[in-house]
Amino acid sequence: MKASIITIGDELLIGQTVDTNSAWLGSELSILGFDIYRKITIHDRREDILEALEEVKGKADVVLITGGLGPTSDDITKQTLCEFLNTKLVPDHEVLAMIETILTRHNFPMNENNRRQAEVPESCQVLKNSVGTAPGMWFEKDKTIFISMPGVPYEMKYIMTDQAIPRLKKRFTSQVVIHRNIMTYGVPEARLAEILTGFEASLPEMIRLAYLPSYGIIKLRLTATGSDNTLLTNILNTQIRKLYEIIPDLIFGENEELLEVVIGKLLKEKGRTVCSAESCTGGNIAHMLTSVPGSSLYYKGSVIAYNNNVKQELLNVPAEIIEKSGAVSEEAVSKMAEGARKLLKTDFSVATSGIAGPDGGTESKPVGTIWIAIASERGVVTEKHIFGSDRKVNITRFSVAALNLLRKQIISH
Amino acid sequence: MKASIITIGDELLIGQTVDTNSAWLGSELSILGFDIYRKITIHDRREDILEALEEVKGKADVVLITGGLGPTSDDITKQTLCEFLNTKLVPDHEVLAMIETILTRHNFPMNENNRRQAEVPESCQVLKNSVGTAPGMWFEKDKTIFISMPGVPYEMKYIMTDQAIPRLKKRFTSQVVIHRNIMTYGVPEARLAEILTGFEASLPEMIRLAYLPSYGIIKLRLTATGSDNTLLTNILNTQIRKLYEIIPDLIFGENEELLEVVIGKLLKEKGRTVCSAESCTGGNIAHMLTSVPGSSLYYKGSVIAYNNNVKQELLNVPAEIIEKSGAVSEEAVSKMAEGARKLLKTDFSVATSGIAGPDGGTESKPVGTIWIAIASERGVVTEKHIFGSDRKVNITRFSVAALNLLRKQIISH
Repeated sequence: MKASIITIGDELLIGQTVDTNSAWLGSELSILGFDIYRKITIHDRREDILEALEEVKGKADVVLITGGLGPTSDDITKQTLCEFLNTKLVPDHEVLAMIETILTRHNFPMNENNRRQAEVPESCQVLKNSVGTAPGMWFEKDKTIFISMPGVPYEMKYIMTDQAIPRLKKRFTSQVVIHRNIMTYGVPEARLAEILTGFEASLPEMIRLAYLPSYGIIKLRLTATGSDNTLLTNILNTQIRKLYEIIPDLIFGENEELLEVVIGKLLKEKGRTVCSAESCTGGNIAHMLTSVPGSSLYYKGSVIAYNNNVKQELLNVPAEIIEKSGAVSEEAVSKMAEGARKLLKTDFSVATSGIAGPDGGTESKPVGTIWIAIASERGVVTEKHIFGSDRKVNITRFSVAALNLLRKQIISH
Repeated sequence: MKASIITIGDELLIGQTVDTNSAWLGSELSILGFDIYRKITIHDRREDILEALEEVKGKADVVLITGGLGPTSDDITKQTLCEFLNTKLVPDHEVLAMIETILTRHNFPMNENNRRQAEVPESCQVLKNSVGTAPGMWFEKDKTIFISMPGVPYEMKYIMTDQAIPRLKKRFTSQVVIHRNIMTYGVPEARLAEILTGFEASLPEMIRLAYLPSYGIIKLRLTATGSDNTLLTNILNTQIRKLYEIIPDLIFGENEELLEVVIGKLLKEKGRTVCSAESCTGGNIAHMLTSVPGSSLYYKGSVIAYNNNVKQELLNVPAEIIEKSGAVSEEAVSKMAEGARKLLKTDFSVATSGIAGPDGGTESKPVGTIWIAIASERGVVTEKHIFGSDRKVNITRFSVAALNLLRKQIISH
């Protein structure tokens, strides 16, 4: 089963946009068991698109195409697909109705560009896009399936997940490829690899292990390939049980489960609530917690206390502590956690105070330093970390570290 | 002047690594005036590499290749280049000496793998790599220049900056390509294209316009190509002035500038401060504002009031308003903005209350509904929007809409 990816867009070639779409698509195709033999990026240019389509036609079983589906004149994918398929553009009435609904809601009139967005090549099947106005398209030529999607990442992901992947699964069933992910946090990749040396060496031949690190979280991906689903599942389960025996404290979830999702489940199970008091993370912990659907059941609110007066007035951090130990200190962050828990009346609170950078570091408290505190009915637990120098990376690493400490505290209750 | 980029590596195809190298290379080539007509990503596989090399040979003036130069058995680029060039691998004594120095420094013995790293195809010129052990290589075939570099980003960048770019500059008296971006917000892409129909039609031939949308923000990219830098810059400036005349209210910045960065500049200029009171955006506005370095100068803090009690107790939203109009209402969001501004003692406050989804919508307030309020010494300004059904997309779109209203309010003061 061979697949190819074609991404269309000048911005990808001149490096104005990093092509994250094709990495995501590659990962999804790979999970389905496809060998992605080639990715091609080309201009929004008729001849280039036609050339790329001709090249992969008959060679790949599936070709995923992104980009060039917008309503403006630089978007020429659809017309070019018509040429390739020897067909013409026709309006799709369902898509047109959806665009009309969206426009009406925003009080925009329908114009020629909008109408053009609802047009699709006559011989294609429309893949519904519920999060945007450009529909996805599925068509076949010379035994190759082509799937064309917009380049806007969330629209592309919606069409893939909701429409394309289910169809591809139905169509291609030959080889069984099962991926299982074990989510870990707590040690760096090199150290984890060292701990798992023996485990890796003893893995059965049909199983591959990959380490996928991201902001301190390391996803262990086990991939089993073969023909018997039940057999592979059993073997995978055995290996995963082994992992739980070797690194019980490092595993926090399975299969892409985020820390905030795990925390949400734990809080719902235990009927507990949480809030946050954030300085250096500036609302990112609140944002992560509330990105989970249904989080209003256990998340009540936060105080983002960037300014020291806010720490004192709203969270009751004594001025003496800030004067003596500074806002980035165990004492201050403990008071922040206690103050927020009391103010927002929750069972748990998570507080952060640190130096995200690029400025503000000192010899004793370099950029990347963070104090984390979790308050509960049992008192306050704290942790200190020192990460790197990049502000955005620090904010994410701070938040992940804080959520992991929160998770461990909730479990221990 | 045509260029192509070939990146080699399984990890790029299965999406384990996002290919940031080729974006960087594309940007550098584009600055040199090259038209990057195609990027290709392939496996570490002999036949695939040969096929890609044959395709671009004689077609591109310059081909940049990254990856497959490591010391392990899956790195086969060099052997394959020999086959392509009809030559053999020979040790490069300068590279060998350098590897020896590095190993001695770390107390590692020289092994067969290290020795292999010092080998290069006989007909190539070595491009020195002072930050790693894999040398870059420059060779020519059928009037095409091939430059092969390691895939490790900082090694690749070193070889490009220190060795390849100076040689390319000497070789190609370059064409000038200038990109300028105008950031807009306020109307959908199709509507913007309609407004700019006349502008687009009257653009001089050497200028291309592209629309790059993301969460309601549309980046207009103007690209000028020619030979005279000053002339092109002048023409671009004229066109950009025209844009400011046609859509003054929609433009919020230039060249990748984010709304939160523009807001930060405005607040610093005016010596004003801001806070947020967030319900449905759950801290994301605070997160966006604080992702800007130096934001502590104007951002004081936020109250994330997810729970209605928090809205009442901390932000003083009267219980009657929530009972009568609901938390997602113009009245409630106005009180939230006023309450936060008073509590956090800032000049401006931005408040949000809406339904991010996937649940919680009603007929009169569907998922995607948001009320935004900006409070200042002059009172409160509000706006209502209805976006789509995806929770994560909604949270981002809500935040962007709120920041844009905040920006407009700051400007009007």
